[in-house]
Amino acid sequence: MKETEFGYIKWIQKRLKPYPDVALGSGDDAAVIRISKGRCLIATTDTIVEGIDFKPHVRFAQCKQITPEAIGHKAVAISLSDIAAMGQGKPPLYALITVALPARLNNQRFTHRLFEGMHRIASRFGVRIVGGDLSAINGPLTITSTLLGYNNGPILKRSGAKAGDIIMVTGRLGGSILGRHLTFTPRIKETLFLNRCYRINSMMDISDGLSTDLGHICEASNIGAQLVENRIPASDAARKLSGKTGRSPVSHALSDGEDFELLFTASPDQARRIIRERKVAVSAIGFMTKDKGICLEDTEGRIRRMKPEGYRHF
Amino acid sequence: MKETEFGYIKWIQKRLKPYPDVALGSGDDAAVIRISKGRCLIATTDTIVEGIDFKPHVRFAQCKQITPEAIGHKAVAISLSDIAAMGQGKPPLYALITVALPARLNNQRFTHRLFEGMHRIASRFGVRIVGGDLSAINGPLTITSTLLGYNNGPILKRSGAKAGDIIMVTGRLGGSILGRHLTFTPRIKETLFLNRCYRINSMMDISDGLSTDLGHICEASNIGAQLVENRIPASDAARKLSGKTGRSPVSHALSDGEDFELLFTASPDQARRIIRERKVAVSAIGFMTKDKGICLEDTEGRIRRMKPEGYRHF
Repeated sequence: MKETEFGYIKWIQKRLKPYPDVALGSGDDAAVIRISKGRCLIATTDTIVEGIDFKPHVRFAQCKQITPEAIGHKAVAISLSDIAAMGQGKPPLYALITVALPARLNNQRFTHRLFEGMHRIASRFGVRIVGGDLSAINGPLTITSTLLGYNNGPILKRSGAKAGDIIMVTGRLGGSILGRHLTFTPRIKETLFLNRCYRINSMMDISDGLSTDLGHICEASNIGAQLVENRIPASDAARKLSGKTGRSPVSHALSDGEDFELLFTASPDQARRIIRERKVAVSAIGFMTKDKGICLEDTEGRIRRMKPEGYRHF
Repeated sequence: MKETEFGYIKWIQKRLKPYPDVALGSGDDAAVIRISKGRCLIATTDTIVEGIDFKPHVRFAQCKQITPEAIGHKAVAISLSDIAAMGQGKPPLYALITVALPARLNNQRFTHRLFEGMHRIASRFGVRIVGGDLSAINGPLTITSTLLGYNNGPILKRSGAKAGDIIMVTGRLGGSILGRHLTFTPRIKETLFLNRCYRINSMMDISDGLSTDLGHICEASNIGAQLVENRIPASDAARKLSGKTGRSPVSHALSDGEDFELLFTASPDQARRIIRERKVAVSAIGFMTKDKGICLEDTEGRIRRMKPEGYRHF
């Protein structure tokens, strides 16, 4: 029997025992391991696969070929985004990176530039590359990055949302396929500021798409959510893509995924402060509800139930 | 320009800065990160790729098909072997595992058994699986396991060998392709005992082949080695393979790789104690020399220089 990505993850989670030294295991953006009183290790791992997460021979809308540096950047940036999703990211961070390299890409021009892409973003965020593994593969270029860091401030989980919380996102969403999925800046600076200055109840990063990822917060927190369509910040890329697909920019913002923006909730009081003080560019896009499921209030004030429509590997 | 696996690794190492909080970075079996005074994190990552590290449709010599459980076992066992290679492995250990799953293997029969293989060896060695990532791949099944643990006893590096040290290995070598490369038991128990009861100067695990891996110890320690041919413990599998290849069992023991036994050095005094006390099955196979390079004393007492002939990905 075939199974979905989330189905597998649930099946595995049921098999994993809880341990007192594992504050947070599989099911959030990163794992949290207790090292000593008050001190935790944050650990996350992500794989990117050629043909799935990047297509080296496809050109950007902007007509630039995807560069080896951009692939290296993405490999590290997605893991940094997972660390940011926990409200963490203060240096030092540590990276272990494995590369399964097909023979057709085994040339110094490609590999040196691939490494430079990793090294540049690592240096920028205080990530020390401490180890890795290099393997051959008879297939697509496949890179796994594992990031480790310590907690600094409370751990922001998916499960902390409360009914009445305001739902917020950083930046603008949708259309990342036009380039931003390879060049994005992980929201480390923003998450550290938000976690230091405000009380955030729940957080994750948007990788599978706003509606799917909000569904993860709802499920983990055992509540629901209502989004307000005309508050959802669609990106320029979403608008551009909309011209080609005939779907609305907001529909792209809801479901495209790979935005790697922060999706988080806070009490109305805290949310008001965040928006008023304008230290981080965020949009309030809805609120958490006692009733489960996700609803969308459209531009005419009608409220309808939504189905999550984000990205699934299978 | 094409480049070799070790060439890339050296190129990368030159680009990585030393940090006071990184006690040991790229270039040994695992990285060592200082957490606090005397306390370190040991971290290692390994990728196995279908068609390279395992061939699901090839039968064992024993006529058993390679099972999904065996693949899951190997994915975790190779990282455990790297932890063992540092003289470490006391529970708790923590694993992050990523699986890039091709559509043709996306069925519960395969995936559940793959996970059971991982879970079984993890449970046996006190490894908590704390996270991971599941991705699609249009190509071979590719699994990356990252293992984390704390130090317990001195860190055994490749670089600690001294001229005059006796070279020792656990178990028997060669012919692991006939099955043992998938079913081996990582030498955690042995390494913990050796590191607790004796003074070991250098250690690594044999993954690329005895002669290649001994070359790594020589290079890291800036000395050489002399092996004694009739002391090298060839396995039954090496003997069996020898019947097919026409090469000697010792030649297989020297170069086949994927033995995942411990290769280590200690002073003659310590070595005598280890061998006399017989708590761990080890063989003394030679000694470290001031002169660089590796020599082999053959069965007739002739000494010749060896070229390392182990496995290279490219």
